[in-house]
Amino acid sequence: VKIAELGEFGLVELISKTINDSHVEKTESPQKLIIGIGDDCAAWHGDNSIQIATVDALVQDVHFTLDITSWADLGWKALAINLSDIAAMGGLPQFALVSLALPSDTEVNDVLLFYRNMIELANQHGVSIIGGDTDSASRISITVTLLGSMGSQNSLLTRSSAKPGDDIAVTGYLGNAAAGFKMLSGKLELDNDASTLLKQAFTRPVPRITEGRLLVKSGIKTVIDISDGLVSDLRHICKASGVGARLETGKIPVSSALKAGFGSEALNFALSGGEDYELLFTGRHDLIENIKQQTDCPITVIGEITVDNPGEITLVDGKDRIIKPDTAGWQHFISK
Amino acid sequence: VKIAELGEFGLVELISKTINDSHVEKTESPQKLIIGIGDDCAAWHGDNSIQIATVDALVQDVHFTLDITSWADLGWKALAINLSDIAAMGGLPQFALVSLALPSDTEVNDVLLFYRNMIELANQHGVSIIGGDTDSASRISITVTLLGSMGSQNSLLTRSSAKPGDDIAVTGYLGNAAAGFKMLSGKLELDNDASTLLKQAFTRPVPRITEGRLLVKSGIKTVIDISDGLVSDLRHICKASGVGARLETGKIPVSSALKAGFGSEALNFALSGGEDYELLFTGRHDLIENIKQQTDCPITVIGEITVDNPGEITLVDGKDRIIKPDTAGWQHFISK
Repeated sequence: VKIAELGEFGLVELISKTINDSHVEKTESPQKLIIGIGDDCAAWHGDNSIQIATVDALVQDVHFTLDITSWADLGWKALAINLSDIAAMGGLPQFALVSLALPSDTEVNDVLLFYRNMIELANQHGVSIIGGDTDSASRISITVTLLGSMGSQNSLLTRSSAKPGDDIAVTGYLGNAAAGFKMLSGKLELDNDASTLLKQAFTRPVPRITEGRLLVKSGIKTVIDISDGLVSDLRHICKASGVGARLETGKIPVSSALKAGFGSEALNFALSGGEDYELLFTGRHDLIENIKQQTDCPITVIGEITVDNPGEITLVDGKDRIIKPDTAGWQHFISK
Repeated sequence: VKIAELGEFGLVELISKTINDSHVEKTESPQKLIIGIGDDCAAWHGDNSIQIATVDALVQDVHFTLDITSWADLGWKALAINLSDIAAMGGLPQFALVSLALPSDTEVNDVLLFYRNMIELANQHGVSIIGGDTDSASRISITVTLLGSMGSQNSLLTRSSAKPGDDIAVTGYLGNAAAGFKMLSGKLELDNDASTLLKQAFTRPVPRITEGRLLVKSGIKTVIDISDGLVSDLRHICKASGVGARLETGKIPVSSALKAGFGSEALNFALSGGEDYELLFTGRHDLIENIKQQTDCPITVIGEITVDNPGEITLVDGKDRIIKPDTAGWQHFISK
C-alpha cells in the first residue's frame, strides 16, 4: 500500500499507533509525559534541571540515498545523530519530535520499518517520541528534534572551554563510517567481519550517551561529537575556545578493519571522513587517565590544545614532522 | 551572493549573527537561556511548570510556492503556524529550533529576509530562536519546533474533552486565508482594503496566543486551531472526545471582504478552506459569554456538541435544514 492510497490522516493514525504500542517504561526519565502524539502539542511535567535541545535533518540525495541506506537504517540514524548531540553535552535524552516529508508513492510498510527502527533505538535510551508532522514532498526529508535534561548535573559540556595544555582525546575508532560509505557506494568486498563493522559504522552509528554522562561526571568541560570530521570538529572547538591544537596522527585510533581494507587511505578517513559520532574532548591529563579506568569504551589521547592562533590545527607524524591533510571536513553546500 | 558561494559554515555564521543581534529582553519568559545557537545543543534552566512542544513543516510546492509566498512571509508563517499550536494548548511560547533545507542557488539575502521576519514575530511573543540546522536540498523545506510552557496554569486545552451540550465557538473570521490564496493564485482584483485583508490572512496569519491564554484561564478545556478547515478540525475534536456536533452555517463568522469578493463561495471557504489559524473551542454557554466580555477579539458561537456518533458533524442552515458541504478539509496526500 502506498501513502497516496492511505491518505494523510490514515498514515498519521498508523504511525501514532506504532509509536504508542511500543512505549516502554521510562524508569530513568525524570519528567512525566502528560500528552503524547495526537493533540496540538505534546505536554509533560517540567523540573528544575537544566534542559537541552537539538535538531538535525537528513535530506535524500544530500545526506543519504536509498540504495545505500535502507528505510530501517534511516529510522535508526535520524535519531542517532541527534542522540549524539545530546551525548556531546553530557545530557540524558528524553523526548523526540519527528517531522517527515515523503513522496506520495512511498510504501506504507517502509514508513513503519523506519519508525520501528527509530523506536528500537529510542527505547534503548529511554526516549519517547511525543510529536511529529507528516508531509508530502518530492524527496524524503527527516527532521528530528531531541529534548533532554542534564539530570542532577549542573555543568554542560560545551565547545568553548578548551585551555592550552589540555589533552585532546576521542572515544572509539575514527574513519569507519566514511570507509563504510565508500564500501557501500563502490560495492567493495572485504572479509565478512570487516565489512559488517564498517557498514554498521555508517548505517547504525551508536551514540555515546553513556560516555557523555561519564565525561560530565568526571569533570570534563569541553566536548563535541564528530560529525563533520576530526579536524573540522576540532577546529570548531578551537575557534569557540580561542585556542590552537596539535594532533599526533600516529595516535589517532584506527580500527584494524579500516587499516586492512583501506591501507594508506585510512588516516584520511579518520581525519576528515566525518559521521563517526564519537566524542572528541579536551581536559587535564589526570582527569582523562581517570576516565579510562571507568569505562570499557576505548579512550585515546591524540594531541594537545596549544596557544596557537584560534582554530589553527597542526598535524604531526610519529617523528614530529608537520604534515598536511588532504581535506578539512565536509561542507554540505560545497561540492566535494 | 548565493549560498553555494558562501558555504555552509559561512551561512550558519551569518544566520547565528542575525539571530543573536536581534534578541530582545524576554521579560515574560520564566526560563533562562544558558546556551543559544553555536554548540551541540541549546540549554536553559528548567522549571516545574507543564512543558509543551510542537513541530510543523512547510515544504515548497506542497505548502507554498515562492511566486505567492515571499521569503519574508515564509519566515513569518513558518513560526506562526507553530505559535498557533501553542495557542491551541493555552500555552506561552518560549524557544524555537529552525531546520532549513535550501537549494544551493538561494540568495543569501533571501535567507536573511526569512530570518528577520521570523524574528519579528518571535520577538512579539517573547520567543528566542535557540537552535537550528541548515542543509542543502533541491526544494525549500522549513521545519520549526516550538517549545513552550503553561506558566502558572495547571490545565491544558486538549481536543478530547468536549461534552454534549457544550457550545462550539471560534475566534475571528473564517475562510479569509483560503480566499487570500485564491486571490493570489488567480491574480483576482478586489478593492484595496479587501485585497490586503485576505492576502494577509494567508501570508501573515496572526497566532491567537493571547486568546489561548484567556481560554485556559476562563475554564475552557477543549480547543484546536483551525489549520485543515473548520469541519475537518471540528471532526478531530469530535473523534477525540467521542461526540458529534451540529454546526449552524448561518452563524459562522465571515468577513465582509470575503462576502463581497466571493459571494456564495464564502461559506465553503469558511467551512473547509483551512489555514485560518483561529481557535475553535467548546465549553459551557456561560463560560463563553463571560469570555466575550474580556476580549476585543470576535468570539462567535456557531453550534453545539451532540450525542451523535463520534465524529459525525451535521450542518444546518438558518431554517434548521440539513445541508452538505462540498469538501471536508484538506488532506495533503490526496490531490484536490
